[in-house]
Amino acid sequence: MDKARTESFSDGVFAFAITLLVLGIQVPEIKTGSNEELRKALLRCLPQLVPYVTSFATIGIIWLNHHAMFHGVERVEHTTLTLNLLLLLVVAFIPYPTAVLSRYGALPASAFLYGAVLTLLGIAYSALWLHIVRRRLTSSLRDEAEARRKIWRNLTGPLIYCAATLVALRYPKVSVLIYFLLAAFYFIPTRHPSGVSERG
Amino acid sequence: MDKARTESFSDGVFAFAITLLVLGIQVPEIKTGSNEELRKALLRCLPQLVPYVTSFATIGIIWLNHHAMFHGVERVEHTTLTLNLLLLLVVAFIPYPTAVLSRYGALPASAFLYGAVLTLLGIAYSALWLHIVRRRLTSSLRDEAEARRKIWRNLTGPLIYCAATLVALRYPKVSVLIYFLLAAFYFIPTRHPSGVSERG
Amino acid sequence: MDKARTESFSDGVFAFAITLLVLGIQVPEIKTGSNEELRKALLRCLPQLVPYVTSFATIGIIWLNHHAMFHGVERVEHTTLTLNLLLLLVVAFIPYPTAVLSRYGALPASAFLYGAVLTLLGIAYSALWLHIVRRRLTSSLRDEAEARRKIWRNLTGPLIYCAATLVALRYPKVSVLIYFLLAAFYFIPTRHPSGVSERG
Amino acid sequence: MDKARTESFSDGVFAFAITLLVLGIQVPEIKTGSNEELRKALLRCLPQLVPYVTSFATIGIIWLNHHAMFHGVERVEHTTLTLNLLLLLVVAFIPYPTAVLSRYGALPASAFLYGAVLTLLGIAYSALWLHIVRRRLTSSLRDEAEARRKIWRNLTGPLIYCAATLVALRYPKVSVLIYFLLAAFYFIPTRHPSGVSERG
Repeated sequence: MDKARTESFSDGVFAFAITLLVLGIQVPEIKTGSNEELRKALLRCLPQLVPYVTSFATIGIIWLNHHAMFHGVERVEHTTLTLNLLLLLVVAFIPYPTAVLSRYGALPASAFLYGAVLTLLGIAYSALWLHIVRRRLTSSLRDEAEARRKIWRNLTGPLIYCAATLVALRYPKVSVLIYFLLAAFYFIPTRHPSGVSERG
Repeated sequence: MDKARTESFSDGVFAFAITLLVLGIQVPEIKTGSNEELRKALLRCLPQLVPYVTSFATIGIIWLNHHAMFHGVERVEHTTLTLNLLLLLVVAFIPYPTAVLSRYGALPASAFLYGAVLTLLGIAYSALWLHIVRRRLTSSLRDEAEARRKIWRNLTGPLIYCAATLVALRYPKVSVLIYFLLAAFYFIPTRHPSGVSERG
Repeated sequence: MDKARTESFSDGVFAFAITLLVLGIQVPEIKTGSNEELRKALLRCLPQLVPYVTSFATIGIIWLNHHAMFHGVERVEHTTLTLNLLLLLVVAFIPYPTAVLSRYGALPASAFLYGAVLTLLGIAYSALWLHIVRRRLTSSLRDEAEARRKIWRNLTGPLIYCAATLVALRYPKVSVLIYFLLAAFYFIPTRHPSGVSERG
Repeated sequence: MDKARTESFSDGVFAFAITLLVLGIQVPEIKTGSNEELRKALLRCLPQLVPYVTSFATIGIIWLNHHAMFHGVERVEHTTLTLNLLLLLVVAFIPYPTAVLSRYGALPASAFLYGAVLTLLGIAYSALWLHIVRRRLTSSLRDEAEARRKIWRNLTGPLIYCAATLVALRYPKVSVLIYFLLAAFYFIPTRHPSGVSERG
């Protein structure tokens, strides 16, 4: 299997999913068509930007990390392709919980759904990464110790998302804030001179 | 005709069609905006995931096989391009029967439509493959016997899908289950050490 | 300007526009949710496939020709990029008249709109081609005579589409049939042994 | 980080956002289904083309400039990627204000929203460009003086958009005209013999 075509297909899905997010922000339906009414309706839509930006940043980060992950990969076999498709399945699904959260705000049900999907995203990413590391399909790890460190670090993400998802059942707004801060945190440039820092 | 650009265009359509599937899952319309109502509405949407996952896996498999098929192709002439566009025509149409099946569940009409489109997908794929094999446009087949085997195997898919489509007229839920299991079956990694196993 | 990136951007727009067409086919809205009602509603949607297939084939052909056109292009300067974006502007717009024609059938207004957009498509394509030929930006023409022939042939398309558009004002069904037949005609493989035959 | 994959991901988002714009033009809802009613409804939709064309041209120009900007870039580090994702965040959002402006026409609220997003687009583009120039990540600038000139020129865009956005509060139609003329102005080919002229 050609690594380049896998990457380009994955890039396509990442780019589409990230651009489809905008459809989740509703164009307000107003009756009179007056400016005053439109202005108020648009202001009421403002909080919808939070799930949009969070999902955009989250998909962006997963894309960056996917990129870094595949950089060292030397051959792509069937299991890698399957796990990669599972990851893309979750990525392509993100516009749905984002639209639900945008539309109904931070209710327990919408925040729980959103967090559950981000948790699945973390699990799918970690599963792919674990497979690549365990089967020695990558050349970017220097030794066993680094591999273990990376695996543990990759498990942190899903665990925090899982915790935030459970928080959503009682404090949905807090949990949406956590999703947002996690995405923002991963976005802050690091001091690593070596370029992209994989954190996801 | 440049093979690389054909592949990149096809990848675009595959990646796009697979990402558009999510629009077929309805964001529930609730009146009161209460959490309880949203929770119930979302739970009622759960079965919609079955067509989503089935279509995602089916397009993913066709993409993998398309990939493997074009790998050995040495030159792309007009008929190949035309048959490839016919295949993409069916692939790009898949979000429609998926949305119908998601929305109305496994009724005979929706399950029949869905199966009919998957059958067409199999036929379009086989036609492209048959053309490539018969015109000796590929270098990936060792001999006549292997070509014949592959052609027969490629005809299995459409035949099973056709049978499942007819089953839909009486037992729509059974037929949806078959579509799902077929997609899952093709997803299971094989033991072939040579990488991708073409099965579609 | 990098020719490869222009081609890949154009391929993206072609692939997206062709895949967005499916959103123009309406998922039927039925009240009772009975199978009988859904079956009838889906059968009523069948004619919507005609604009879908016509637009798909038309965009597919333009993509094939765009491909062949850029194959010989040696450098891409600002005017080529601008004319190319104008072509893509029309391509990306096609889902709209397709959706209108799908929804309301072959009325004079919908068939006229559809034909007008296809005429614009032909004009935009010819303008780009004319610019490339006149500025000697391509290496794929052997001599002046061939350039002139190609220019004339490229003007045929817009002229036929323009005529069919005018026919729509009186006989909308005839004009939709013409659009369909033109797309089908361009799809038939030619005997040219040299690969892709540019006809659009 | 691989420059090629960053470009291809960005191209995907640009191409996708530009193609999604068409969904902002409403397929008219008519009751009787008569040709006369459809004709009038379509004519009423005509002004919706202004935001469509403006946004298409604006994204097209940003894509051209993004292209020219990355051409000289030699290495892509984390901050560049982050700023690039911020730019794409705004690009992917453009279909929303375009749809609002299409739907409700040039009211102060819709024209202000549209202008504010274009201003943000200019700021995000300038920030990326400023970072690349200040960190000496590009080889396409000859000297300090040219870098300074380019930076100033890049700031002109956001300033004009910001002014036009403020005008929208009182004269929304004038401000929509300015957005349109700016996009048209940037589209006119320049006399630079060196190819693409960066102006955005």
